[in-house]
Amino acid sequence: MNLLLLEEADFIAADRVVLRDRRLKHMQEVHRSEVGDSLRVGRVNGLLGSARLLRLEAREAELSVSFEHAPPAKLPLTLILALPRPKMLRRVFQTVATMGVPRVILVNSYRVEKSFWQTPFLEAAAIREQLILGLEQARDSVLPEIVIEKRFKPFVEDRLPAVVEGTLGLVGHPGDFPACPRAVEQPVTLAIGPEGGWIPYEVDLLHASGLNPVQLGARILRVETAVTALLARLF
Amino acid sequence: MNLLLLEEADFIAADRVVLRDRRLKHMQEVHRSEVGDSLRVGRVNGLLGSARLLRLEAREAELSVSFEHAPPAKLPLTLILALPRPKMLRRVFQTVATMGVPRVILVNSYRVEKSFWQTPFLEAAAIREQLILGLEQARDSVLPEIVIEKRFKPFVEDRLPAVVEGTLGLVGHPGDFPACPRAVEQPVTLAIGPEGGWIPYEVDLLHASGLNPVQLGARILRVETAVTALLARLF
Repeated sequence: MNLLLLEEADFIAADRVVLRDRRLKHMQEVHRSEVGDSLRVGRVNGLLGSARLLRLEAREAELSVSFEHAPPAKLPLTLILALPRPKMLRRVFQTVATMGVPRVILVNSYRVEKSFWQTPFLEAAAIREQLILGLEQARDSVLPEIVIEKRFKPFVEDRLPAVVEGTLGLVGHPGDFPACPRAVEQPVTLAIGPEGGWIPYEVDLLHASGLNPVQLGARILRVETAVTALLARLF
Repeated sequence: MNLLLLEEADFIAADRVVLRDRRLKHMQEVHRSEVGDSLRVGRVNGLLGSARLLRLEAREAELSVSFEHAPPAKLPLTLILALPRPKMLRRVFQTVATMGVPRVILVNSYRVEKSFWQTPFLEAAAIREQLILGLEQARDSVLPEIVIEKRFKPFVEDRLPAVVEGTLGLVGHPGDFPACPRAVEQPVTLAIGPEGGWIPYEVDLLHASGLNPVQLGARILRVETAVTALLARLF
């Protein structure tokens, strides 16, 4: 937790917050904070700033806060992701928030097991929890938008073209394709497949909607690693 | 498991193996393999090839194997890593094996908690287990070398200069430094700090031994994410 992210409900005055949850515990056990300490804070979907610890008790802490500067810029990117398996999904939510992805669209794919869509990790509160952890890691305050598009074909045929318009459209896929470009200057729409990859029919459909296949070498990466590697190369 | 990695002890003849462990379970439960199926295999520290499933019983499987081609090339890199916390360490071992890092040197740092050095995940068998998982993911067969250099100063002063010689030496560190270079053509020696970063004294010492500080932007990444992002950018 490199940043203490504050929710509206934490505020007891415009410049004063009280914390009682895991953030209190983290201050006590990891940071070993003491009264008078200064901490980096951010307001969810707002500015970053600093806090001073006024009072630290077993069950609550009170801090005075001020907000001065904007969070780091997001990447100019829409990330389309075949739904990963639940355990990976949680980590991917953290990773995309940390890396500065502003929008993720989760889609179905032939190789996504149907049961993955039943995971409680797709509930709004569970998604938000992981995104907050990722933002705290990166010292960012702005929640990415997570869109769920469970039906592949209607999304790709009817709505994807409008997403891709004006961007560099790419779909990561192993094979005899150009290497993923580096240090691009324009906005990107990037699609990353499931474990085992997209099937050819899906690549064709994504391609028809404006995404060009690119590859990242012979090594097959886990989804979380592929997301990080592709973004680090693109931006 | 995108590749079935075979150990010497698995062979009952030059072209025949018997499996009884987690690899058997994986074939049964994840791949749902059947007799006659063809599988990708590799020999630990040897060639890649293919296998045919001859016999599949509850407790063992027998396969005929042949080996034809070399594993993917490794990166021209020595990675120096401040010892991560145990849970992260396991994942980092997988990630470096997947990404094709041939050699990792684990070092101490001021911000590495002393207790981290006591973890059972640093035992040779535990390290090997994670490396194998990472190799199976990437379809590689060659184990990276893991070197443990518990004392920072003697390593950096006495042995690091010989490691750096003839390579591009870099140390990842947030701050007012040049951005990490992209698509380099030469071998690299790269040092990545602990959570919370190197302390200035350490950066100075690394710099004196030939590593130039580079940064990766304002966002603070977890160690595993930083490793992937730096490698994807460098190579």
